Amino acid sequence: MLPDQSLHKKARNMALIVHKYGGTSVGSPERIKNVAKRVAKARAEGHDIVVVVSAMSGETNRLVALAHEMQEHPDPRELDVVLSTGEQVTIGLLAMALKDIGVDAKSYTGWQVALKTDTAHTKARIESIDDEKMRADLADGKVVIVAGFQGISSEGDISTLGRGGSDTSAVALAAALKADECQIYTDVDGVYTTDPRVVPEARRMDTVTFEEMIELASLGSKVLQIRSVEFAGKYKVRLRVLSSLQDGGNGTLITFEEDDNMERAAVTGIAFDKNQARINVRGVPDKPGVAYQILGAVADANIEVDMIIQNVGSEGTTDFSFTVPRGDYKQTLEILSERQDSIGAASIDGDDTVCKVSAVGLGMRSHVGVAAKIFRTLAEEGINIQMISTSEIKVSVLIDEKYMELATRVLHKAFDLG
Amino acid sequence: MLPDQSLHKKARNMALIVHKYGGTSVGSPERIKNVAKRVAKARAEGHDIVVVVSAMSGETNRLVALAHEMQEHPDPRELDVVLSTGEQVTIGLLAMALKDIGVDAKSYTGWQVALKTDTAHTKARIESIDDEKMRADLADGKVVIVAGFQGISSEGDISTLGRGGSDTSAVALAAALKADECQIYTDVDGVYTTDPRVVPEARRMDTVTFEEMIELASLGSKVLQIRSVEFAGKYKVRLRVLSSLQDGGNGTLITFEEDDNMERAAVTGIAFDKNQARINVRGVPDKPGVAYQILGAVADANIEVDMIIQNVGSEGTTDFSFTVPRGDYKQTLEILSERQDSIGAASIDGDDTVCKVSAVGLGMRSHVGVAAKIFRTLAEEGINIQMISTSEIKVSVLIDEKYMELATRVLHKAFDLG
Repeated sequence: MLPDQSLHKKARNMALIVHKYGGTSVGSPERIKNVAKRVAKARAEGHDIVVVVSAMSGETNRLVALAHEMQEHPDPRELDVVLSTGEQVTIGLLAMALKDIGVDAKSYTGWQVALKTDTAHTKARIESIDDEKMRADLADGKVVIVAGFQGISSEGDISTLGRGGSDTSAVALAAALKADECQIYTDVDGVYTTDPRVVPEARRMDTVTFEEMIELASLGSKVLQIRSVEFAGKYKVRLRVLSSLQDGGNGTLITFEEDDNMERAAVTGIAFDKNQARINVRGVPDKPGVAYQILGAVADANIEVDMIIQNVGSEGTTDFSFTVPRGDYKQTLEILSERQDSIGAASIDGDDTVCKVSAVGLGMRSHVGVAAKIFRTLAEEGINIQMISTSEIKVSVLIDEKYMELATRVLHKAFDLG
Repeated sequence: MLPDQSLHKKARNMALIVHKYGGTSVGSPERIKNVAKRVAKARAEGHDIVVVVSAMSGETNRLVALAHEMQEHPDPRELDVVLSTGEQVTIGLLAMALKDIGVDAKSYTGWQVALKTDTAHTKARIESIDDEKMRADLADGKVVIVAGFQGISSEGDISTLGRGGSDTSAVALAAALKADECQIYTDVDGVYTTDPRVVPEARRMDTVTFEEMIELASLGSKVLQIRSVEFAGKYKVRLRVLSSLQDGGNGTLITFEEDDNMERAAVTGIAFDKNQARINVRGVPDKPGVAYQILGAVADANIEVDMIIQNVGSEGTTDFSFTVPRGDYKQTLEILSERQDSIGAASIDGDDTVCKVSAVGLGMRSHVGVAAKIFRTLAEEGINIQMISTSEIKVSVLIDEKYMELATRVLHKAFDLG
C-alpha cells in the first residue's frame, strides 16, 4: 500500500476546480446538504475544490426590504454591510455540512481572501485577490468555501458586486487561482440552442464560444451574468454551466478558442426578447445632427436604446425608428412629443407589442446567406419584419410579439438546431 | 455668530459616551428607529457617541437553529462566521436610520475595529482594540456604530464572545477609548434593591458599587452580564444601566470608589435564587479528605456547587451538605449513591424545593449585626433557615422555596430599602 504522502501528492496532480452555487441551489438546509454531497463527490475524485456560494434564496430580498424600512434610498456603504451577511451565513452553513459528512472545509468572507474592489458600493469592480490562504488550505486537503458577491474596498469597507455578482466572484477566483475550470451550477443543465419551453426540440450545446454566449446572454438567455462571461473572456477562464439539480451531464463549456470557428455551424442559437417597444419619429429633416437631437434627449433620461434604423430619405425628410425597454415606452413618447417642434418631426408614434428574435453564431462570419435564410423563413410563415439589425455574429429582427414563439420555432428548425 | 470651527471645538470638549442596546431594543425596524432618535438626542447635546448593538431579538436563535440543521455540534469557527452576521445586519440598519434623520454615522464590524480576541470560538476573550478609525470618525463629527458580541481572532478568523458578549464589547470599547461613561440600555431602568415584581416597594438605586453589582448579578438580578461588570472593574470604566424604553431617568451608576463606603447602608439589596437544590450526605467519617471525596466526584461531572456546610462532628462522624443547580439534582444524587460505600456515608438524601435569599451590601464590612437581623426577621415569620453562608459583603440563607417572596419582602423592609 502506498504511504499517505504519495496518495496526497497524486491528488495534488488532479485538477483545481471552482464550483459556484446560486441562491436556489442553497435555498434550504436540505439543499445546502445536497451541495455538500456534490462537492464531496468532486473532492473524492481527487480534485482540489473551491466553492463560491450566494445567499440563500429570498435572503437578499429580505435584507433589502429591511434596509428600505430605514431609508428610502439606503446608504450604499451601509447597504453593503447588511447585504453581505447573506453569503456569510451560507459559507458557514456549507462548511458545517461538509464537516458533518467528513470533508474538511474552511469558509472565507470576501475580506478574508482580500478580494479587493473599488469603492463603487453595491456595484463594485474586482481589482485583486490574495490566493495565499486558499492555496495553503488546498495543500492541506481542505475544501475552500468563499462568499460570493462581496469584497473589501480600497478603503477597508465591505463592498458588493451587484446582482449576480457571485458568478463574477467565482470567475475572478478561478482566474486568481489559475483554476483548471470554473463550474457554474444553475437550475438549467447548460446553454440551449433556444428556450426549451418554446421549442421542445431545443438542444443543449456541448460548447458555445465566449462571443456567442455574450450575445445569447444579452438577448435573453439569462443563464450567466454577462459581466462574469466578459471577465472569463478577459482572463481566459475555462467556464462551464451545469445543473445543480441533476447528477451527471457535462453541461455546456464556454470556449475562447478562435481556431474552432472553421467547423462551427453558421447559427448556433436562437434568442428572443419580449422587453421591446418601437418608437417611430416620422418626417424629420434629412440633415446631419437629427439623430443626436432625437436620441440625445432619450439618453439624458437614462433610457437605453437597442435597435436603431434610419431610412434613406426622400424629398428632404426621413423616418427614424428605434426600440427601448417596454417599461420606458410611455416616457420616451412623452419626451419626444415635447420636442416634436424643435426636432421638426411630422409625427411621433410607436408600438409596444413587438419582440426581437435573433440568430446567433460565430460561424456567421464565414458564411453567407444567413440573413437571407431568416427573411425567407419568416416570409414563408407570413411574419412581417419591422426592423433588422445585424452584427458580426448575429442577425436580429423586430416582429409582432404574437409571432415570437412561431418565429423562434421555425428559425430553430431552418438552421437544423434540433 | 461663532464660526463653525469654534462650535465644533466646543462640542469636542463634551463627553465621549458609549451606548449599548440589546436585542430587544433593536428587535424591529421601528425600535431601531427609536434607538436612532435616542442617539441623535445625545449627539445633539454635544457628546461624542459610540453605539454598540446586539442582533435583532430572535435572530441569533434563528441562526443557531440553522447551524444545528447542518451539524449536531456545529463547528465553532464556522458557527461564529454564521452568528456574527446578526450584529452586522443591525449596525448597517442603525447607520441608515441615523443618516435618515440627518445624523452622520458609520458602522464597523468587530474585525474592522480590530477587536482582537483569542481563538476560543463561541466564547472568545478580548485582547486588544484599535481605536484609530473610531477616533478619526468622532473627530469628524460622526456617530460610530460597532457590532457587539464579535471580534477577530489572532488567526484572522471571526470570533464571538458568547451570550451577553455585547455588554462586554461595549465596556471594552469604552476602556479602549477612555470613554467618560458606558451606558447599557436595557428593558429595566436600573438596578433595584430587589425584584419589583416580588416587592412593589423595591427602589431603583442611584449608585451601586462594583462589588455589590457582582454579588447581585450572580445572585439572580440579571441586569448585566457578570463578565462585563468584572471587565469594567478591571479597567475602571464608569458603567451605567438605563432603560431603553423610557425617556429621562439616570438609571443606576456602577461605582468603583471604595471611599464611598463610609456612608453606605449596611445592606443595599436583597437577591433571591430559586435554582437551588440541597444534597445531604449524612454520617460520614469525620476525617481529612472526606470533603474532597464527596465534592471531587461532583466537580468531575461539571456540576457547580454553591453553598457548602460541614457540621461539627460528634462520635467520629459528621454531616455534609451543599447545594447544586436544580437541573443537576438527580445526577448529583446518583453520583453520590454510587460512591456511598467508598465515602462511608450512612445515608444520602436531598431536597429540590429550596431557594437562596441573600442580603448584599458593601457597608456590611463595617457594620455588625446584619446576620443577626436576618435571622431574627425570618424567625419572626416562622421561616426555618436550612443553611447559611456569608462573605464579606453578603449573607445568604437557604430556605423552603415557598417562603421566598415572603422572606424577600420582610428582609427588604427590615433593612429600610423601600
